Amino acid sequence: MATTQGQVITCKAAVAWEPNKPLTIEDVQVAPPQAGEVRVKILYTALCHTDAYTWSGKDPEGLFPCILGHEAAGVVESVGEGVTEVQPGDHVIPCYQAECRECKFCKSGKTNLCGKVHSATGVGVMLEDRKSRFSINGKPIYHFMGTSTFSQYTVVHDVSVAKIDPKAPLEKVCLLGCGVPTGLGAVWNTAKVEPGSTVAIFGLGTVGLAVAEGAKTAGASRVIGVDIDSNKFQIAKDFGVTEFVNPKDHEKPIQQVIADLTDGGVDYSFECIGNVSVMRSALECTHKGWGTSVVVGVAASGQEISTRPFQLVTGRVWKGTAFGAFKSRSQVPWLVEKYLKKEIKVDEYITHNMTLEEINQAFDLMHEGKCLRVVLAMHG
Amino acid sequence: MATTQGQVITCKAAVAWEPNKPLTIEDVQVAPPQAGEVRVKILYTALCHTDAYTWSGKDPEGLFPCILGHEAAGVVESVGEGVTEVQPGDHVIPCYQAECRECKFCKSGKTNLCGKVHSATGVGVMLEDRKSRFSINGKPIYHFMGTSTFSQYTVVHDVSVAKIDPKAPLEKVCLLGCGVPTGLGAVWNTAKVEPGSTVAIFGLGTVGLAVAEGAKTAGASRVIGVDIDSNKFQIAKDFGVTEFVNPKDHEKPIQQVIADLTDGGVDYSFECIGNVSVMRSALECTHKGWGTSVVVGVAASGQEISTRPFQLVTGRVWKGTAFGAFKSRSQVPWLVEKYLKKEIKVDEYITHNMTLEEINQAFDLMHEGKCLRVVLAMHG
Repeated sequence: MATTQGQVITCKAAVAWEPNKPLTIEDVQVAPPQAGEVRVKILYTALCHTDAYTWSGKDPEGLFPCILGHEAAGVVESVGEGVTEVQPGDHVIPCYQAECRECKFCKSGKTNLCGKVHSATGVGVMLEDRKSRFSINGKPIYHFMGTSTFSQYTVVHDVSVAKIDPKAPLEKVCLLGCGVPTGLGAVWNTAKVEPGSTVAIFGLGTVGLAVAEGAKTAGASRVIGVDIDSNKFQIAKDFGVTEFVNPKDHEKPIQQVIADLTDGGVDYSFECIGNVSVMRSALECTHKGWGTSVVVGVAASGQEISTRPFQLVTGRVWKGTAFGAFKSRSQVPWLVEKYLKKEIKVDEYITHNMTLEEINQAFDLMHEGKCLRVVLAMHG
Repeated sequence: MATTQGQVITCKAAVAWEPNKPLTIEDVQVAPPQAGEVRVKILYTALCHTDAYTWSGKDPEGLFPCILGHEAAGVVESVGEGVTEVQPGDHVIPCYQAECRECKFCKSGKTNLCGKVHSATGVGVMLEDRKSRFSINGKPIYHFMGTSTFSQYTVVHDVSVAKIDPKAPLEKVCLLGCGVPTGLGAVWNTAKVEPGSTVAIFGLGTVGLAVAEGAKTAGASRVIGVDIDSNKFQIAKDFGVTEFVNPKDHEKPIQQVIADLTDGGVDYSFECIGNVSVMRSALECTHKGWGTSVVVGVAASGQEISTRPFQLVTGRVWKGTAFGAFKSRSQVPWLVEKYLKKEIKVDEYITHNMTLEEINQAFDLMHEGKCLRVVLAMHG
């Protein structure tokens, strides 16, 4: 049992005081977990574009000051009343997508979107008392996505924590908290790509590469990577991309280029950027009669997708995915096992290892497109 | 064997000489069927909004002069070379959606959209010589949708004709050429509505009512009919609609009204009007996590649908359907059998019986919204 149990812990965290201003490393007070809560010592966290999006101020639901971060791994420090599924010392991955197994969403058998804690995590607080567990000298600091992993300690709801095999290296499997499952699951769970299918992927960042790996393991016959940065093509081959198209090399609309390459269009397409006009191209490059396009990227608030309804009437299907439709608590441990059995890549997405103190430089790397995933060691 | 075999037949047809001008009943010369073609004596035809749409001139692919009509039944008069699946005297329903069983679409197992004759039917001619079989004093008249059933005799491709049980009354089952299968199939084939589901239907014309019947037979627990004409509500009950919403009675957006009625949205929705803003409402009134919306109505050319991608990322699916995803030659006969066994309604959609000569008045009835289906007797 941790000696810190029941105590406020003061630790380092990267705080976003206001939009677009550099994060600052602060001494933060982390309150003990209340009923149904788990306090986690975060050991490693990665950076994701969703953190940067909220930080930028463009997310109208973003609240400041807050502690960002949602792709991480750590060890349970202590648990609140009534928590039975994890205990101190368990290795865990915090999950921004909860899984309570009791709400109508969890029981539907049709979705991974759990409704239990959303009303609290959506506004930066905990469900029990609708307050934050983070403060600095008494001033509350908002949670983010129910995870706030840019802190050495965080408090999460028990329905938002996946217990994983302690043999898994946390500095690697932290990536299984967001981007990699999102890409794999978009293919396996949302699109359900069959052997022999043709696939187009728009955007070859971490999520797009995970889509490529998912497509490869699903037996896709052709995996067409689309990106405006041809430098990404070489590494993408290692993840399963078989052909490359740079829209800048073509005068025709990209959907036409892909249709021409594939005798009418691909069977499945995935938008992994968050650009609404690319989402349209992704739909329209799929084959009449059965093409399915999955929106994976997160568009900026207020933006809209559009197309002619004829695209749907002639058999195309437009879907989306969140966390790859994986049930977080049930399936993240399964993904960790697949990693340990070398059935899925994880290490290969990590291009940089840095520390919490270097978090602003890490975000600079991301904005410059010079990295896939940067993993921060949270305790030096 | 018909004595007319191999001869040009002169018969009556309603000709659309130019957009929006009244159809005129003309003596038309119908050439004998060539290889792979079937000449059909049309006995009964119904009117559908798609005829009116092309006639209006708003369809940029509309060609004039032409003979409209695509929801009909008749008897094979003669067949061209190589036609083996039907013979003179067979009772048939012409199908605007072909089924060749050989093209990549037919063989895909994923769609009813056949590619074989589309390049010809899309431009008003026959595939064999890319010419029309209709003429008036030597001047060619275009075909329409590969069917042109507003003529006492028409020529169709053999892949576009469904042979049906001769016991079926042609004055009724002509409706199985378009609207009724479109609605039933949208539910059974495209959405795959399960028992206990909640359903919303936008537009309570023939197609919307067929959706209601399809939902009822699929075991839907609630079928919410949405229409701006409350007069349609009474008859809709007979087809399976259990609740009614008139958007004019509400200040809130209709998607919000339906979400409020159904604890977050319906499981399935169907747009049966062809209005792109209603298509958006139909998508957005479905439940987060699993809601599926099917575009059934045909929008005017150039119009676009739009929504926030968040609607898809949070689990809604946007699809469309053409002829209810039924394989025409294989499944129209099956629908006829279901009608004969009283498992599906057909008679109940027919509100008016008129003759070919009265076709303009029949369209007036349609435009005034005073009918469901009008069936024309083609031979007096």
